[in-house]
Amino acid sequence: MFNPDEQIFADRMMDLPRSFVREILEVATQPNMISFAGGLPNKNLFPVEALRLATEKIFEEKDPNIFQYASSEGFMPLRRQIADRYAKKGMKDVKAENILITSGSQQAFDLVVKAFINEGDKIILEEPTYLGAIQAFSLFNPTYVTVPLQEDGPDTAAMEQALSQGAKLLYLIPNFQNPSGTTTSAAKRKAIADLVRKTNTVILEDDPYGELSFSDTPFSPVRSYLPEQTILLGSFSKVAVPAFRIGWMVLPDYVKAKILVAKEAADLHTNTFTQRIIHNFLTDNDLDAHIARITARYKSQKEAMIKAIAEHFPKEVSTTNPLGGMFLWASMPKEVPALKLFEAGVQDGVCIVPGNPFYAKKYHTDEITTMRLCYASMDEPTIEEGIKRLGKAMQRMIAHAR
Amino acid sequence: MFNPDEQIFADRMMDLPRSFVREILEVATQPNMISFAGGLPNKNLFPVEALRLATEKIFEEKDPNIFQYASSEGFMPLRRQIADRYAKKGMKDVKAENILITSGSQQAFDLVVKAFINEGDKIILEEPTYLGAIQAFSLFNPTYVTVPLQEDGPDTAAMEQALSQGAKLLYLIPNFQNPSGTTTSAAKRKAIADLVRKTNTVILEDDPYGELSFSDTPFSPVRSYLPEQTILLGSFSKVAVPAFRIGWMVLPDYVKAKILVAKEAADLHTNTFTQRIIHNFLTDNDLDAHIARITARYKSQKEAMIKAIAEHFPKEVSTTNPLGGMFLWASMPKEVPALKLFEAGVQDGVCIVPGNPFYAKKYHTDEITTMRLCYASMDEPTIEEGIKRLGKAMQRMIAHAR
Repeated sequence: MFNPDEQIFADRMMDLPRSFVREILEVATQPNMISFAGGLPNKNLFPVEALRLATEKIFEEKDPNIFQYASSEGFMPLRRQIADRYAKKGMKDVKAENILITSGSQQAFDLVVKAFINEGDKIILEEPTYLGAIQAFSLFNPTYVTVPLQEDGPDTAAMEQALSQGAKLLYLIPNFQNPSGTTTSAAKRKAIADLVRKTNTVILEDDPYGELSFSDTPFSPVRSYLPEQTILLGSFSKVAVPAFRIGWMVLPDYVKAKILVAKEAADLHTNTFTQRIIHNFLTDNDLDAHIARITARYKSQKEAMIKAIAEHFPKEVSTTNPLGGMFLWASMPKEVPALKLFEAGVQDGVCIVPGNPFYAKKYHTDEITTMRLCYASMDEPTIEEGIKRLGKAMQRMIAHAR
Repeated sequence: MFNPDEQIFADRMMDLPRSFVREILEVATQPNMISFAGGLPNKNLFPVEALRLATEKIFEEKDPNIFQYASSEGFMPLRRQIADRYAKKGMKDVKAENILITSGSQQAFDLVVKAFINEGDKIILEEPTYLGAIQAFSLFNPTYVTVPLQEDGPDTAAMEQALSQGAKLLYLIPNFQNPSGTTTSAAKRKAIADLVRKTNTVILEDDPYGELSFSDTPFSPVRSYLPEQTILLGSFSKVAVPAFRIGWMVLPDYVKAKILVAKEAADLHTNTFTQRIIHNFLTDNDLDAHIARITARYKSQKEAMIKAIAEHFPKEVSTTNPLGGMFLWASMPKEVPALKLFEAGVQDGVCIVPGNPFYAKKYHTDEITTMRLCYASMDEPTIEEGIKRLGKAMQRMIAHAR
């Protein structure tokens, strides 16, 4: 007789952490809740009118082939535009043929781990790192080796030690890291590339936020130091819209065929209709001008958050001060475990992501006293009010503990 | 030093068959090639104008939330419409909450195999079966147990024997099967459900073609006999457009949480923009009337193919005569190995899919003398010309062999 107990599922589904993201997003939709939890771009900056025009153009072509099945690699004119943008930034060796369009950057994690990882193979992670990547990787039961993040990027001594253990992949987010907001210095990028060059490890460089820089001094991706050993990821979710689910991978030649097999098996190809909308949008608009509008707003929002934190958080709390992107990272005193702060904050109408899910190894413990705050989603007065509520919750926890 | 040899990849990537689909689609785009190879819907039947209006409505809402990140389950109003369609067909127990939107039906294969299959676990397949499912399954190194397809569906004695081996999954395409065009009889559907009920196997019922019936007598899905042990798949690719990549799964409660974790890790969520277009399209149009237009054309195209085959193929060739869907299946004499016919056909300007990739176990051998012919993609005169060319290639091969 059928018994739908756990044994019908694969082992990989057994020990999975429950999804913090999903639970938190549910809480975050409660009325009057101010949420710093989601990694949501500010919706008021979506280029909706430009996308409307870009969409109209598709229908004006009156070509039914637009709606047909298409190639697994993605829409070639869009891949050329992506290659051109890299060339403008000095990465002239990125060819359109080596760009594969993915269903959001998230899909790239699944495809890469599928192509590279046998059960138990090592993946090196920055600590903390993006929880969505941890979720995708964990389905393939890797062994994680973690390297602490410092103010200027991963600890290189720990990195050398980690690499000496023979990892298949090294996952990096050098620009405005999620969750920490940290940016890896140019010196460390080069140092990491030099270390990896001596190994058989492949770098998975995730760069969804790189274009959201608050200054005019861009860093070269790690890939520019070690192109043959790096898979570079990009996305239109943060610079255009997330709903279209258009990301991409820059793949070394020897990786491309494998990833293509995995991509074809995963969903045949990414939505070509929205690929074409993005293509028209890039053709008819100045993406850099649009990005400048986004970063001006996010910079102002970040500064409002930093200012409110100085005013309302207990003195013992320290935070990063990101040079771009959407997130900052706060470290609390031991009286403020992040999971408890999450619960206390919800009572006061404010929602955060506790640091816990960003650590591959220490899950669900009260040792973790860090949290991620997203300043991208809302305007400055709301940010100030939310930080005030959060500060009150922290003060209460500290008073109670002492 | 870095050495990009095979050892950097996962074992699962080693023995993969090369992708027939990709190679054949390349051949199929040669000028003057008549291609029966691709599984492409007839592009002239895409409801482009209705989709244009459905898209305009989205922009008229002027709600930026439409373009934001969204839930992994999918757009609830679309899920309700899908549940309502099932209810109209007598499946009143399908709740919107149990429908998960996928990035095409193809993604469902990846999510299900990920959630259920450890290396070596058994999957029962009809023989032949859909090559895209085989591709997705094979990345997780299952053991295949095959059950021969007969005119009225899988051989039930072989099915009983296969089920007794303790399979995790049973993959079925009961309606107008890809590649064979076979429809499983109502009696066999019930018999299979009765056999599976005694086991711990879960049925994966794939139904992308079920609505493309040439008659008014629909069959109940296998799910209707055994809902608690069946995952049912559907898709808008064949009844609306493939480019939008919108499919769905109907999931028993105990499966949903696992699949949702896998879905979130795979791509966070399916493109919500095109989910909303389909929702508006369903709201403002009569999908059944649109489907009736498609099936009237496909029926006429199929009849043209059957007639041309009777005229131009050697007498020794037999074919199925599908009751719906897009494909028929031809069995040739031993002088016509399918792989050689593929090559011979290309010389004469006609392209087919040899049967080989539809068998999980017998790949790249000249034992296989079957092929799939798609009659959906083109008009009747082109079908007749293509069949004529193919007949000539076969006659030549037979003459040469004798």
